[in-house]
Amino acid sequence: MALKDEKKIKKSQTCPFQEAMDLISGKWTMSIINTLMAGKMRFKELERSVVGINTRMLVKELKQLENRKIISRKAFATMPPTVEYSLTEKGTSLKPVLVEIQAWAMQNVV
Amino acid sequence: MALKDEKKIKKSQTCPFQEAMDLISGKWTMSIINTLMAGKMRFKELERSVVGINTRMLVKELKQLENRKIISRKAFATMPPTVEYSLTEKGTSLKPVLVEIQAWAMQNVV
Repeated sequence: MALKDEKKIKKSQTCPFQEAMDLISGKWTMSIINTLMAGKMRFKELERSVVGINTRMLVKELKQLENRKIISRKAFATMPPTVEYSLTEKGTSLKPVLVEIQAWAMQNVV
Repeated sequence: MALKDEKKIKKSQTCPFQEAMDLISGKWTMSIINTLMAGKMRFKELERSVVGINTRMLVKELKQLENRKIISRKAFATMPPTVEYSLTEKGTSLKPVLVEIQAWAMQNVV
């Protein structure tokens, strides 16, 4: 119980910056968001576009991003069923962050 | 062996953006960099400033960031020995990324 309380206190002390990082950190998170900046995509398209990710990880990441209201998922009752993923307003507003990461990458990684 | 080759190909296909994310993603990475933007710091100071991190994680993160040439570590032969951490030029150039994450956090987390 005491440990749980301590954890609660630590959580409430977290700064907005750290809370944002809890939402967007993760090896694949920003790459998926970056890919969806081009527009809505189906699962298979995303899987091809995010180079190096495996199916299991992509499923997990998409579910997390949906819970965090950064992407939205629309299912269509077609045959076979299709599912489309797109950025929410909250997700789209990450554009300036992506632009700066891209600029940093060009100077420091290539 | 075949699997290893495949991994190598996947690695070389990674785009600069994904490589950058490999360097800076991680739950605590950007918070540590953000904290060091204020100037060099000792281990204990960092531990107090990065709210919520534990000692083991901080040690691990600092070692990783040093290997990635984002921070530098200076040890002084004082009694007791002191160690100072500071951002390299590569680390300091992440400032615009931090500014944008901060702005996004203020609009979407608070």
